[in-house]
Amino acid sequence: MRSRALIEILRPVNDVMIGIAVIAGYLVGGGRAPLPALEGFLTGFLISGYSMVINDIFDVRVDILNRRMRPLVRGDLSIGGAWALALSTLALGMVTSALTGMATLVIAAIFAALAFLYSAKLKMMGLAGNIVVALSMAIPFLYGGVMGGINYLLVFVMFSTSFLTGLSREVLKAIADVKGDAASGIRSLPATAGVEVSAVLSAALIALAVPIAYIPVIAGLRSPWYVSGVSIASLIFILMAIDISKLRDPQRAYVMKKRMLIPMAIGLITYVVQGLLLA
Amino acid sequence: MRSRALIEILRPVNDVMIGIAVIAGYLVGGGRAPLPALEGFLTGFLISGYSMVINDIFDVRVDILNRRMRPLVRGDLSIGGAWALALSTLALGMVTSALTGMATLVIAAIFAALAFLYSAKLKMMGLAGNIVVALSMAIPFLYGGVMGGINYLLVFVMFSTSFLTGLSREVLKAIADVKGDAASGIRSLPATAGVEVSAVLSAALIALAVPIAYIPVIAGLRSPWYVSGVSIASLIFILMAIDISKLRDPQRAYVMKKRMLIPMAIGLITYVVQGLLLA
Repeated sequence: MRSRALIEILRPVNDVMIGIAVIAGYLVGGGRAPLPALEGFLTGFLISGYSMVINDIFDVRVDILNRRMRPLVRGDLSIGGAWALALSTLALGMVTSALTGMATLVIAAIFAALAFLYSAKLKMMGLAGNIVVALSMAIPFLYGGVMGGINYLLVFVMFSTSFLTGLSREVLKAIADVKGDAASGIRSLPATAGVEVSAVLSAALIALAVPIAYIPVIAGLRSPWYVSGVSIASLIFILMAIDISKLRDPQRAYVMKKRMLIPMAIGLITYVVQGLLLA
Repeated sequence: MRSRALIEILRPVNDVMIGIAVIAGYLVGGGRAPLPALEGFLTGFLISGYSMVINDIFDVRVDILNRRMRPLVRGDLSIGGAWALALSTLALGMVTSALTGMATLVIAAIFAALAFLYSAKLKMMGLAGNIVVALSMAIPFLYGGVMGGINYLLVFVMFSTSFLTGLSREVLKAIADVKGDAASGIRSLPATAGVEVSAVLSAALIALAVPIAYIPVIAGLRSPWYVSGVSIASLIFILMAIDISKLRDPQRAYVMKKRMLIPMAIGLITYVVQGLLLA
């Protein structure tokens, strides 16, 4: 097994992002100690690495046809070696997770189970697959937030809005890929229910996220940072939702999906800055 | 002029990133008020938008041959219209900058002048062009930091390390592009001085950034967050610098350039979190 194959199958850039999301959740949740933050980062990194390996293992037959450069297809890593890697990253991740308590261990185990379910089955099943992907983007925030253990309201809002907007984005992605997915037998929502219904659902998910983001304000959080950050993100989201609801052209969905990263980043920054200011 | 052409030429994703970098610098510099943060964001957004338009104007002859999809080449926006857009974003940016004081106005003007110089001339001149690109990535942090006006030491470290590692990354990029650049007449460092010299320079720039990141620790900042964040980023940077110094294959430079975003992101997060904790 070459170290290059190891890096390719583990996709460290993705894993680092998940680890950083855990730290972001921890800070928003009120955590300030470096050691639990490091343990949370490692858990996120390891369980995400496990999910990448699992995904490549289940995809190996399809990748032989389409993506011949993946390490399992090239033979730089055996299927047995990949299973050993998946098991060891999972086991190590469970250990680093257990260090921060039982609640986080349960969340990590749910994340790991979802990743397996997704690769094994849900990936081909349209909306259910989209929901699992969106969950797996939001769970690291929840994980870190539970570790922080103080500002649960802000963590709940961060988790819900990132899940809803993430799911909206996954549906947009499915609209953009509607032709290719239909050809590969993926029963995506746009392929079965049509582009129109999918676009309206994608817009509705965003519309649902906006009032949730204001719950802390209603509950008395008068911070001008939070109010302005959430308002800017919400304004962009609402304008985008109007556009998305009228979407008919799959090519255009691709553009909207990319553009959605802007209000998502603004929202994420708002939560983290607000969480740190509450210190 | 269609709104799509406007978005394409202004590249709002890039501009938002520059605006966010200003806010990051502001928070690290000790700033906490939302209104100056918004003014700083708008300045970064507008001056960055101006530099994107200027770049497309100067590139229009080359783009006619190579990138026929750019709005000026397609004719969705006239050259005159582009100049009008560049002038108005620049003027607006100067106004939002003046709102936060004279020092920031001078920095914004320097940024705008560098962007012009780069598009008009330095782009073709190898290392000088690389230096200007790296500076334009670091200046938004300095801009926001000066606005913050409290933690100058952390701002100085953020500015210097992002400049040095950014320049290292630009040299790596030039190594990756060595064949294409030579064909287009760009006198890049790897084309004139060789891949070997360029790789050693790229590694040396990283090596220079690491001790600078520890200056606040030497000066008495004993925060475990800062020490662990900077240590993780430095460790990755040093391991990468060893690899880079031995680099001979341009293809490999492309991989290293992408991977460098990981320690850069960790460093950036460390500065911002530390800046907020000092509140």
